[in-house]
Formats: sequence, structure tokens, C-alpha cells
Amino acid sequence: MDERIPARPPGDAPPEFDADFRDRFADLLAWRRDVRRFRTDPLPQGALERLLSLAALAPSVGLSEPWRFVLVEDAERRRRVRADFAACNQAALAAQPEDRAGLYARLKLAGLEEAPCHLAVFADRGTTQGGGLGRRTMPEAAEYSAVTAIHTLWLAARAEGIGLGWVSILDPARVAAILDVPPDWRFVGYLCLGYPAEADGRPELERAGWERRAGLRLVRR
Amino acid sequence: MDERIPARPPGDAPPEFDADFRDRFADLLAWRRDVRRFRTDPLPQGALERLLSLAALAPSVGLSEPWRFVLVEDAERRRRVRADFAACNQAALAAQPEDRAGLYARLKLAGLEEAPCHLAVFADRGTTQGGGLGRRTMPEAAEYSAVTAIHTLWLAARAEGIGLGWVSILDPARVAAILDVPPDWRFVGYLCLGYPAEADGRPELERAGWERRAGLRLVRR
Repeated sequence: MDERIPARPPGDAPPEFDADFRDRFADLLAWRRDVRRFRTDPLPQGALERLLSLAALAPSVGLSEPWRFVLVEDAERRRRVRADFAACNQAALAAQPEDRAGLYARLKLAGLEEAPCHLAVFADRGTTQGGGLGRRTMPEAAEYSAVTAIHTLWLAARAEGIGLGWVSILDPARVAAILDVPPDWRFVGYLCLGYPAEADGRPELERAGWERRAGLRLVRR
Repeated sequence: MDERIPARPPGDAPPEFDADFRDRFADLLAWRRDVRRFRTDPLPQGALERLLSLAALAPSVGLSEPWRFVLVEDAERRRRVRADFAACNQAALAAQPEDRAGLYARLKLAGLEEAPCHLAVFADRGTTQGGGLGRRTMPEAAEYSAVTAIHTLWLAARAEGIGLGWVSILDPARVAAILDVPPDWRFVGYLCLGYPAEADGRPELERAGWERRAGLRLVRR
């Protein structure tokens, strides 16, 4: 059942990145969105494999490459994931303070119904690859490596006009059970991919009035 | 002491990313390295703030922006971080199997002596920004958001020819104590930044014979 997708090989000479590239890269960062509104048409043939071969270039602790991507295609498993999201989101709504509950209820927080492609991402804490280097005092570095692979996939997808939404309103143990993964695999995130129904330079939660960007907090010591 | 670095604003129109940009972006991913060999000359004036304004565009759970960047300038604090690294690395060496210990001992795993810029990154589990959205079942999503900010900084730095090395061979509680941060802040990683002494398309751990890339593992369900 497993498939190995090799990392895209580097070219021969160290590349130079000019000011024009850096400006476009800044645009990519600024226009990446957490997408919850998808068109239902599928990704083109080969697109997912191409994006994953770029995600495989992400940094990993000790070169352990602990990311495990699960492509969820089975309709019954998808239905159970949607049901878990609905339950977790209902509990989150019930826990909202009164003045925020109405706004929370109106937010669209996942594209699980419409997105054509579902990817669950885990980190394999039990992998022997990398010989445990860098994970002794911080075993959670395995999950952090999986996060950099997700973020790489996210940016590469946006550069092709493909949207990604990260769903964290799920019960990690239940998702692991639904997808029947090995016990050492820690759930990191559930991703919806597809073509976005809209493009915007502002986060959806900002447009919806939920929260605003405050900027990066830098402290000196 | 705190400084707010605003996220670089988006342009007015959704950008188009062409094949040439996507190729250069793939080069950026392939030539990003975990750098441990730095030149000692400082970063140019304004470079760090520019890179951080891009890192501020990273995705964050519920738009909570929980990343906290600590610029470590004090010589005594730096000395104590280096001492903690030395202790943790010695313990890791002692735990190596006999046939790997010699190779482990020869690896250069951090640029803490040479790198001109040190940034410690934490995730603020106690932030009220974002109203807790998306963090109820997965509080660790705060750390994951900080990781995407680190990864954004990493790529933006590489596009300017600046190297970054992520040090995880540290005791998280000791680093938090050395840097005197609030109790809700979880240590995510300690970053060295500076100009790299070399450029290579292959990970240093691969060149040193420690580990090789195996590619991304995709499972279907």
C-alpha cells in the first residue's frame, strides 16, 4: 500500500535568487490562504505527486523524514472524519463566550464536504531513520518536521493556484483510529486540497471579523 | 522591551505565479540547508526585520499568531545556551550505539560559536488572540504555528543568501530559564542565522554519511 515519492533532485549549480524572485516569493507568502471554500473539480493528473515531491524537500530533524501522508479516498472514512469534525466543532461552539457564539457559528472552518483531495498527516515517532539525532531532548521535533512538510506543500500548491486548508478541529486519537495507522504515528493535521472558490490577500478569519493580524512579537534578551 | 514587527502587506491584485517562478521556488526548497558552518560577519542592517516581516505572514491556528521570537544578544545568556548544547550533545553521544559513536562525534551539529544572530522561538500557549479557535482538541497547534513561522523565515533567509540552522539538541526547560520567558511559552527551536560558509544541494548529514533521504511516504486509505 505504501508509495515512496522521491524528493525532487536539486540542480547542479547553486541558484541565485534575484530581487524579482524575492518579491514574487513575498507575494506567495502574502496570498497563501487557509482555504475553506473549494470548487469540487479534482486536481489535475500528477499534481499531487508533483507537490509531494516538493514537500519531500522540507527540513527534518536528523534527516529522519518522519512525515507520513495518508491520502484518504474511502467514502466511509471521509464520512467518519466529517462526523468527528462536526462533533468537535459543536463542542467548541458550546464553549464559546456568549458574545462570540453567534459569530463562531457563522464561520466556515473546513472544506471537508467540497474539497476533492483529503490528506491526513502524521509524524512517525518510532522511525529509526536519522538514528534519533536531535530528538533526544525534543521528541516533538518529529511533529515539527511534519509541519514543515505541510507548509512546503501549502506554498507549492498555492504557486499552482491550488488551495489548502488545515483542519485541527478533530480528535487526534479518533482520526488515527478511523485511518487505522500504526500506534507510533502522531496525528499532526488533516488537509483539504482543491481549487479555491475565491482569492484574497486577507485571512478569512480577518474578513469575517473574528481576529486581526497583530504582527510578529520580538523580544530582546 | 517588546517590539511588534508588522506582516508585510499584500499587493492589491491576486498574483499569478508562472512556470519560471515555480522552478525557482523548487530551487529554493532544494537549496535550503540546515546550516552549521557560518561566517562570523553580521547580517546587514534591516535584514532581520525584513525577514521577520515575512515570517509574520505564516499561517497560524485561529489567527492566533502565537509565535514569540527572542533575539539573544547577551553574551552570558549565549554562553549558557552553548553550555546546555554541549551537555545535551555529550549525553546524546554517550547514548550512541558503538558503531555510530565515532561518526556522531565528528558531526558538526550547530553553529552556536560562529553565527552572528541567535533567535530562540517559543509558542505562547496562553495567548488569547484567536479566541482559542482550533486549539481545543489540539493545543499543540500553537507550536505548529510557530514552526510555520520558522520555516517561512528559513526560506526567506535562503532567498537572500542567508543561512539558518535549527538547534534542537537543547533542554527546553533550561533554555526557557536562561532566557527568562513567561511560563506559558513553550520552547520550539533555537535558530542560528548568518552567511553560510558553503552552499550545497545535499543535506550535510547526507554528505557526512549519517543518513540519506528516503523520500516521502504516501499511504492510501
